[in-house]
Amino acid sequence: MAYEFKIRRRVEFSETDMAGIVHYSNFFRYMEAAEHAFFRSLGASIVTRNTHPEVGWPRVHAHCDYHAPLKFEDEFEVHLLVTEKKSKALSYQFRFSKIGGGPLDLARGKLTVVCVTHNADGSMSAVHIPQEISDQIEVAPPDALAG
Amino acid sequence: MAYEFKIRRRVEFSETDMAGIVHYSNFFRYMEAAEHAFFRSLGASIVTRNTHPEVGWPRVHAHCDYHAPLKFEDEFEVHLLVTEKKSKALSYQFRFSKIGGGPLDLARGKLTVVCVTHNADGSMSAVHIPQEISDQIEVAPPDALAG
Amino acid sequence: MAYEFKIRRRVEFSETDMAGIVHYSNFFRYMEAAEHAFFRSLGASIVTRNTHPEVGWPRVHAHCDYHAPLKFEDEFEVHLLVTEKKSKALSYQFRFSKIGGGPLDLARGKLTVVCVTHNADGSMSAVHIPQEISDQIEVAPPDALAG
Amino acid sequence: MAYEFKIRRRVEFSETDMAGIVHYSNFFRYMEAAEHAFFRSLGASIVTRNTHPEVGWPRVHAHCDYHAPLKFEDEFEVHLLVTEKKSKALSYQFRFSKIGGGPLDLARGKLTVVCVTHNADGSMSAVHIPQEISDQIEVAPPDALAG
Repeated sequence: MAYEFKIRRRVEFSETDMAGIVHYSNFFRYMEAAEHAFFRSLGASIVTRNTHPEVGWPRVHAHCDYHAPLKFEDEFEVHLLVTEKKSKALSYQFRFSKIGGGPLDLARGKLTVVCVTHNADGSMSAVHIPQEISDQIEVAPPDALAG
Repeated sequence: MAYEFKIRRRVEFSETDMAGIVHYSNFFRYMEAAEHAFFRSLGASIVTRNTHPEVGWPRVHAHCDYHAPLKFEDEFEVHLLVTEKKSKALSYQFRFSKIGGGPLDLARGKLTVVCVTHNADGSMSAVHIPQEISDQIEVAPPDALAG
Repeated sequence: MAYEFKIRRRVEFSETDMAGIVHYSNFFRYMEAAEHAFFRSLGASIVTRNTHPEVGWPRVHAHCDYHAPLKFEDEFEVHLLVTEKKSKALSYQFRFSKIGGGPLDLARGKLTVVCVTHNADGSMSAVHIPQEISDQIEVAPPDALAG
Repeated sequence: MAYEFKIRRRVEFSETDMAGIVHYSNFFRYMEAAEHAFFRSLGASIVTRNTHPEVGWPRVHAHCDYHAPLKFEDEFEVHLLVTEKKSKALSYQFRFSKIGGGPLDLARGKLTVVCVTHNADGSMSAVHIPQEISDQIEVAPPDALAG
């Protein structure tokens, strides 16, 4: 059972914009990268080829509050915490912090994702999270989420 | 005085992901494109080279709720509405709808941006929105925001 | 029969990088956008859902020579010219120019794409370009390619 | 003196497109990431804040030949080799290979970058590569480039 995961990255040139800082949309890519690494840490993949049925995880809600910018070559950590676990959906909190000093709390985000199968007509239907995934994920305890 | 603006786009191949739909982070690029087109419609540019002082508009909050996906070559509209106007900040709501039928309400987003100047040491300070911009922007009336 | 197509765009903020110019990788997105608009101009889509078999167009070669930068809100044209047509492949030249003055020849690129079907095991096999597409595309005459 | 560098990456979801493979434009981001890591390995940064004058490295030529696709979560290596060193320009070759089996030679690319300073009017002028950078870079020997 796991409720958190951390990844480290370094800002790439192509992630910056003409304001000299990471473009705000890239924080959502960083969140997703942390989510997928979390799944890999459980021995699974967000692209579940071996579950029955095969499932996908479209996002239904995303947000981010930005407190301080990230710049080229900054090293930073993304800390994922599971904040909610429903039969067909998961929510995560993401905390961004700079490695090697600087603001502790650069940004804080949230994602809510729904477990779906793809129907023959191209539409999607929400389904229960496969047992082998659900069994490994729990909600973070209150003290982990505080602060 | 203006409180809304609409842009139309068509989904590009590079905006899709392996799930066959627009990657969720791109909705934040679409919102920003609508914001910048709104500024141009006022005869201004979000990159204000002619105001004193020169200002920038970093994002402090962004969110999006996704109701239905966008696919390759879908035509869609982004409808920007000004929801809040403070001395140093603006908030916008964004409504995504597909052109030519389909779900009326694909997604709904929000951005809060702060007006800043760049200090000599690279840091940013919030400043009043330049008069020539502020004079042209007003908050959308309640009936425009309803629904 | 068509051998060329032109699209117009305006540089978006998220396409710039910290050097204050369009990130060089985005020229390849612009080329592809011109290619797909060219296909639409023929009444087709690069994602051919109605041909037998269904085909895709992976890129096997791409290049770009950069002569002058594009900046935020610059309006520019991408001029596509068909330079080669084989039974299973097409090559295009792309000419970038700024609208409203400025350098005539900002950049020049090339793409070679191969027509493929997707096999059941996920691999791809080159196939003949479907007749209904092939019949509409011809190579640009030498004088169109000169200069 | 160094003439090569290798980085390892894993394909992220946001780098794929609806064809289920890495979008071809992202190979140019990968090349640049290898180039910047090469610079860091020399104790420098591609964003040279401490050289006199400050220099930038716009790309004047980029190309890539694609032999096999990269898919989500594939691990791969980018092998940079310096192929040319002029007083004001550098050229690199990039070899992409999958880690853990699979095609040895997924793609091969090239970049030519020019060393410039930024003039007061926003234009750029080619300048000599700063000595402290130039002294550390050499062209790869023929046997390293063969194959």
